[in-house]
Amino acid sequence: MSQRTWGGRFSEAPHRLAQEFNASWSFDQRLALVDIEGSLAHAAMLAHQGILGPEEEAQIRQGLLEVRQEILEGRFEWREALEDVHMNIETRLIERIGPVGGKLHTARSRNDQVATDLRLWLRGELSSILAELGVLRRVLVQEAGRFLEPPLILPGYTHTQRAMPVLLSHWFLAYYEMISRDAGRLQDALDRLNESPLGAAALAGTGFPIDRHLTAQTLGFTRPMRNSLDAVGSRDFALEALAALAIAQLTLSRLAEEIVLYSSFEFGFLTLPDAFSTGSSIMPQKKNADHAELIRGKAGRVLGSFVALATVLKGLPLAYNKDLQEDKEPLFDACDTYRASVKLLAAMLPGLQWHPEPMAKAAESGFSLATELADYLAEKGVPFREAHHVVGRVVRHCLEQGKELRDLSLSELQGFHPAYQADALELTRLETAIHRRRSYGGTAPEAVQEALKAAKKELV
Amino acid sequence: MSQRTWGGRFSEAPHRLAQEFNASWSFDQRLALVDIEGSLAHAAMLAHQGILGPEEEAQIRQGLLEVRQEILEGRFEWREALEDVHMNIETRLIERIGPVGGKLHTARSRNDQVATDLRLWLRGELSSILAELGVLRRVLVQEAGRFLEPPLILPGYTHTQRAMPVLLSHWFLAYYEMISRDAGRLQDALDRLNESPLGAAALAGTGFPIDRHLTAQTLGFTRPMRNSLDAVGSRDFALEALAALAIAQLTLSRLAEEIVLYSSFEFGFLTLPDAFSTGSSIMPQKKNADHAELIRGKAGRVLGSFVALATVLKGLPLAYNKDLQEDKEPLFDACDTYRASVKLLAAMLPGLQWHPEPMAKAAESGFSLATELADYLAEKGVPFREAHHVVGRVVRHCLEQGKELRDLSLSELQGFHPAYQADALELTRLETAIHRRRSYGGTAPEAVQEALKAAKKELV
Amino acid sequence: MSQRTWGGRFSEAPHRLAQEFNASWSFDQRLALVDIEGSLAHAAMLAHQGILGPEEEAQIRQGLLEVRQEILEGRFEWREALEDVHMNIETRLIERIGPVGGKLHTARSRNDQVATDLRLWLRGELSSILAELGVLRRVLVQEAGRFLEPPLILPGYTHTQRAMPVLLSHWFLAYYEMISRDAGRLQDALDRLNESPLGAAALAGTGFPIDRHLTAQTLGFTRPMRNSLDAVGSRDFALEALAALAIAQLTLSRLAEEIVLYSSFEFGFLTLPDAFSTGSSIMPQKKNADHAELIRGKAGRVLGSFVALATVLKGLPLAYNKDLQEDKEPLFDACDTYRASVKLLAAMLPGLQWHPEPMAKAAESGFSLATELADYLAEKGVPFREAHHVVGRVVRHCLEQGKELRDLSLSELQGFHPAYQADALELTRLETAIHRRRSYGGTAPEAVQEALKAAKKELV
Amino acid sequence: MSQRTWGGRFSEAPHRLAQEFNASWSFDQRLALVDIEGSLAHAAMLAHQGILGPEEEAQIRQGLLEVRQEILEGRFEWREALEDVHMNIETRLIERIGPVGGKLHTARSRNDQVATDLRLWLRGELSSILAELGVLRRVLVQEAGRFLEPPLILPGYTHTQRAMPVLLSHWFLAYYEMISRDAGRLQDALDRLNESPLGAAALAGTGFPIDRHLTAQTLGFTRPMRNSLDAVGSRDFALEALAALAIAQLTLSRLAEEIVLYSSFEFGFLTLPDAFSTGSSIMPQKKNADHAELIRGKAGRVLGSFVALATVLKGLPLAYNKDLQEDKEPLFDACDTYRASVKLLAAMLPGLQWHPEPMAKAAESGFSLATELADYLAEKGVPFREAHHVVGRVVRHCLEQGKELRDLSLSELQGFHPAYQADALELTRLETAIHRRRSYGGTAPEAVQEALKAAKKELV
Repeated sequence: MSQRTWGGRFSEAPHRLAQEFNASWSFDQRLALVDIEGSLAHAAMLAHQGILGPEEEAQIRQGLLEVRQEILEGRFEWREALEDVHMNIETRLIERIGPVGGKLHTARSRNDQVATDLRLWLRGELSSILAELGVLRRVLVQEAGRFLEPPLILPGYTHTQRAMPVLLSHWFLAYYEMISRDAGRLQDALDRLNESPLGAAALAGTGFPIDRHLTAQTLGFTRPMRNSLDAVGSRDFALEALAALAIAQLTLSRLAEEIVLYSSFEFGFLTLPDAFSTGSSIMPQKKNADHAELIRGKAGRVLGSFVALATVLKGLPLAYNKDLQEDKEPLFDACDTYRASVKLLAAMLPGLQWHPEPMAKAAESGFSLATELADYLAEKGVPFREAHHVVGRVVRHCLEQGKELRDLSLSELQGFHPAYQADALELTRLETAIHRRRSYGGTAPEAVQEALKAAKKELV
Repeated sequence: MSQRTWGGRFSEAPHRLAQEFNASWSFDQRLALVDIEGSLAHAAMLAHQGILGPEEEAQIRQGLLEVRQEILEGRFEWREALEDVHMNIETRLIERIGPVGGKLHTARSRNDQVATDLRLWLRGELSSILAELGVLRRVLVQEAGRFLEPPLILPGYTHTQRAMPVLLSHWFLAYYEMISRDAGRLQDALDRLNESPLGAAALAGTGFPIDRHLTAQTLGFTRPMRNSLDAVGSRDFALEALAALAIAQLTLSRLAEEIVLYSSFEFGFLTLPDAFSTGSSIMPQKKNADHAELIRGKAGRVLGSFVALATVLKGLPLAYNKDLQEDKEPLFDACDTYRASVKLLAAMLPGLQWHPEPMAKAAESGFSLATELADYLAEKGVPFREAHHVVGRVVRHCLEQGKELRDLSLSELQGFHPAYQADALELTRLETAIHRRRSYGGTAPEAVQEALKAAKKELV
Repeated sequence: MSQRTWGGRFSEAPHRLAQEFNASWSFDQRLALVDIEGSLAHAAMLAHQGILGPEEEAQIRQGLLEVRQEILEGRFEWREALEDVHMNIETRLIERIGPVGGKLHTARSRNDQVATDLRLWLRGELSSILAELGVLRRVLVQEAGRFLEPPLILPGYTHTQRAMPVLLSHWFLAYYEMISRDAGRLQDALDRLNESPLGAAALAGTGFPIDRHLTAQTLGFTRPMRNSLDAVGSRDFALEALAALAIAQLTLSRLAEEIVLYSSFEFGFLTLPDAFSTGSSIMPQKKNADHAELIRGKAGRVLGSFVALATVLKGLPLAYNKDLQEDKEPLFDACDTYRASVKLLAAMLPGLQWHPEPMAKAAESGFSLATELADYLAEKGVPFREAHHVVGRVVRHCLEQGKELRDLSLSELQGFHPAYQADALELTRLETAIHRRRSYGGTAPEAVQEALKAAKKELV
Repeated sequence: MSQRTWGGRFSEAPHRLAQEFNASWSFDQRLALVDIEGSLAHAAMLAHQGILGPEEEAQIRQGLLEVRQEILEGRFEWREALEDVHMNIETRLIERIGPVGGKLHTARSRNDQVATDLRLWLRGELSSILAELGVLRRVLVQEAGRFLEPPLILPGYTHTQRAMPVLLSHWFLAYYEMISRDAGRLQDALDRLNESPLGAAALAGTGFPIDRHLTAQTLGFTRPMRNSLDAVGSRDFALEALAALAIAQLTLSRLAEEIVLYSSFEFGFLTLPDAFSTGSSIMPQKKNADHAELIRGKAGRVLGSFVALATVLKGLPLAYNKDLQEDKEPLFDACDTYRASVKLLAAMLPGLQWHPEPMAKAAESGFSLATELADYLAEKGVPFREAHHVVGRVVRHCLEQGKELRDLSLSELQGFHPAYQADALELTRLETAIHRRRSYGGTAPEAVQEALKAAKKELV
């Protein structure tokens, strides 16, 4: 009983079920190091302001460093009765240095303490994720560069139907763009959360002459938060991070889907390295893109985490409520999931073995060059709508005859529209088509080369 | 390498990141006991069909029982390289009994194995949750009974505004009804999932002369599933359970919200037992309904779990895909969360200390008896719409005069409508009002008594 | 002002923004017919109980029927100032029949009225959806029957990799099973919601001597709800329907995904009828599975609707709160979306043109018969685990040599394991393999024939 | 048939159900004006590049302006057979100006067209929402200013339990901070989306010599998107906006919850203006915070919209897929919902009638000043942990005696700890306590005044 730091007014110990239900130490111990970091900054400020004596602060500092060492070395004993990471650490501090340890919590509450801890943790986590994303973005650019000369061509798809040929480099750079924007959102979340709630105390500030700018500065925050109710009661910073992670994992799920498809027998565009595929317990021939499938599936997990915390916050009055304890696990899980997915892709992508022949063959069949024939007419002055209809009929004709476009003779073509001349036949060649898409952002090798240069410049 | 049971066609070991990413043993070990249960049934059937010799089956059975013992005693060593619970157990079996252990996986795949395991686990889990729900439902009925004679009255609310007085017993029985329907949904999920996928093998059935009805019967399933693709590829049973749990946790979140409100200073209807409340690290006076708040917040968690798995299933082709590995953690977490919430409430509710005086005082003020005065006129033949307007003006008059309805004289009332007689004054008394709501399902003591009897009969 | 039926105590008209924000008539007018149905039953009961005179009830009934006629003929004028469908209809009734119309709302509140309306509407809607589902299930069974003799074979997939051959009929019946369970959930939701809240009044029942059993019976409900707070405050019935619809739309999204894949050039298993595909505004050759894609995407929409209402209910105290007005639009939209998807599939599936040759070719290549060779050894007494490894090496050998399994000679096979005899070569033939999977629920024609019979019996 | 612009290769008209299912004109007509804006820019660029003749461009421009006029005047006839807004407008253009209208679609696809339209629309929408948010933020600052001198005090809550007194101004500024961050997220979304997909054509760029920088500039985009696959296949910009809107609506749901609570009888802190509250159809006394409840509930709706689109994107391969048509309705609805909520609050908040007396009374009771007595001891050198326990016992003593803190005598206090002196009694006065919380961001009038100044500076 006495060990519960809030127990003064209580005459009965917690019910066993209640204690278990309430306890968060099993997961919030992950905040232990940032909790101590925050306490060190708080104690130093209290001393600077004369609220703690220099000797007291030295004792507390020393004690905290020793507790940290215990944690780092796995010697720290977590106690459920002490509820959470904060009380576990503070109690251990007092055990080590005596009652003076009880002065650390002056002008502070668990409410501002946990908000500080979570922001510190998330800041570190997002920074490390952004670093991993930097690696992945480099890999994408590197792969784009690898397949540009000679250009590897595959069908570009819309509706999972062959649409027009594109460069594999162009495909890699599409994901580079998407993932770079994902990084931008994570950076925005990181920037916006980097404010200090420390010193907001329970909800209303404190009467002690603290210096919140000092602790903010020590902890690397850009500034103290301006409103104490907001400081302890808001979790939009966590929600924003979860939203950015969910969107980012969705991007990865799209890449993963394409890896799954392209490594199927039917597409046959790539072979996974053995080191990044798995087999079946019953079917000896199987070689599955398990990791890509998991990345795809884990989009659900991260989205679920966002929904979980969002629902917690619905209709929650100010300021702190215990419901907010539910902020940590989804955040921990979402960060872990996304980082692991990013690292895995960065390691796996360079090992993919691409197969130029089936890719090229697929790219030139399926009438994926039909648009060229319509554009040809449009260039000759035929309204595009009309040109489109003409070529639609050409395609229907080919389908009925079991032909591909390149099998057509000039006279056949002219039978559909007199404007066709000999140079139209050129258009049904893959290389011609791909080189024509020179428009900015297009898939012609020159355009892709330009995009590649721009991406490399960003990554310097 | 050799330990990976699917490794025959692979020439390279898994990448460290790939192995970590893929491994599920850290959470699917929770299926260990049902996995062994399924294997025992499978082996017995193989022997019954002559696919295994009696001696072989005996060895396998003995080996499985020993492995189970290791697990129960915490001696089992889980190996990440073995990926999952299935391979860990099978490999250990072979270590113990030699190559004959390799015959267990005849006519079976991990695909039907894991589907069987998860159904067995969830069946047990839902059964145990339903038992806990039975306890909670009994508690609700017991509490309803406790406060019926003499009847404890509190305000019924709509829009968090006092609306009409109700019995506390009536309030308890409202949650009894809601939670009973939640139990009904969980029961439906349990009934629907109780089919056996075992023997569907990888996805297409098997050429071995197995008897799926036998394993289904041994494992307590109502029947084997009728389609092998469906058996290994479907997870709607897990989704249905998650949906039922999410809806059920939402019900608890509503009850929790009312406990939070009613235990506030402003309402003052109840005091939480010390054993089910917690204090503040900074504010010595605080006594918080932490557990109710957590139950409220955890509605987000369970909803998030449903969304997670639902998203996984979106657009997933048949049959098994690795994405389905993401089915377990949300399901485990949702079951744990809901059961813990149910148990906590069952333990906490009987300890709530209700305060009759503030409840009654609140129930009779705030014009919560105004409807009586309108009904009075309606009974005298005044169209209800008109009666409503008359009483609306009475209320406005009282507000302007700072009066309650019971302060009105007969002549004042008659000033608003001549149909009012002396008996109208009676209506502004709490007891009169509450006894009048005798309609079936209403809040009059007689009606509540009847509902209580019906509930008790259901619980026998 | 005077037209607002609750306006008696108010001295100021609603602000324009407030009125707009509050008004629900633009969407809840969809409840108009069931609202009138409920009112007719209520009025008849009031008369039966002597609360209304026979003449009054006749006037009200006549008036309601006239209002209904106005609505059916599109002559009804909806007024925003009257907020919702209930007030619009009641006001119009009073305009038509005079003050006696104001007696209809005796012993009733909008709270029980809207709960009744929504249950009536949803009951009708789910019934109609179940009828459409019956059509779709028949179509699935019919298609399964069409391709059974001679049996059309396609590859069964796991991880989007060819796994083992299956019958197209088996594939159709897998969806039959899944969709039948979806129907089961919708039926459960329908059964559970079919209780009458009418007579719960605002939240506490009423003092008028009403007969709730009578209105319940008139309206086809199985019984009156037993608790008035629950009756007006609960929306789990709507949540359950939304959950069942979300799960059901997810099933359709899986079928849709397979249609998209199978109709791609790469798979080439089926051609969509022109009437169920669309083209491109720029690419004349395109023929897209737009409808399947939409069905796939709409899984998000229905899931979003469930999340929307679930979030509304989180932490909502009893009994009615205005938040509950948000129950309607997600429910309307989810029902419309699912029904349209079901109808579309039922119309489209019979028009799919399946291509036996590429299907069979795909089914027998890709080593999808490798499991046969492992089973062969297992039947000869080789532990399956060992057999699996042997065949894994066989597959690796073939891949290195550019061979398929059927290209192997007996001596080659025996080089991997001496137990192989001449009959092993038979196993690499598609027909052999498919006929072997005779286990219950398996894909052999006999097993599928049995499943088909069972399905047909269910649909009688 | 002929009117379908993609119909050349099709020999059968769409099935009625298919056409209905596919058609988006009923909602995407909301993009009509931006669609025309995009077409005008495209046509001008085509002319500038010599792809259209000046005369042709003039005809097309004139035609588009006329079609716009038809739309603005409600004279435009939408045709379902034309599927969507793009085809409806283009077809009408061709009807008006003849075949030359068919040239507009040169070097463009619906894929880049719709991406451009949606970005243009969302850009305008977010700008207008940010303007409305500016109004609301001003209102919050204005209200904070109104109640600062003399300071209006209310209890600050944690766990819905009175914690410490705060200024009403401080409470308003907490929401100012939260909503300002919400605005920051919307601004980030707006900035990130402002890139031009136009010219990406179907997915691969075009062979026509277009100038994408020119159309980007004309349309006010910061630059053309750098990758054509990304340009047509990505919807993260819509997801980001939906996430920001969902988070922002959650903030409003918290404010709404507090308005609901504070306007209850139990709290009694504020009265809603009649113009922003509604009554009951049965209870004449009711005055409900309907609008606040709806704002609270609508958090579910916006969250559901995010989930809907997120689920659509899961596992979607590049580039455009029809599933993406599901992006519009959630986006439209979320923008409408949030804007209406913001406008309503901005109109309602100034009309709230706050009640200083019950607020102050609540603020000083409930032991909300207990922390002062603990801080007092801490300042005298007692470790805070010990001080907290001492005051916990003081509170328990008062509860048992039915006293408030201010009823304690000095000698009683000294009985708990000898360090208490006469000045400790001062601390149990509300004004003393509130003035002590002078720390940065705290609730003392000086601190709030400072925060108010900072907020006003931001809004200039």
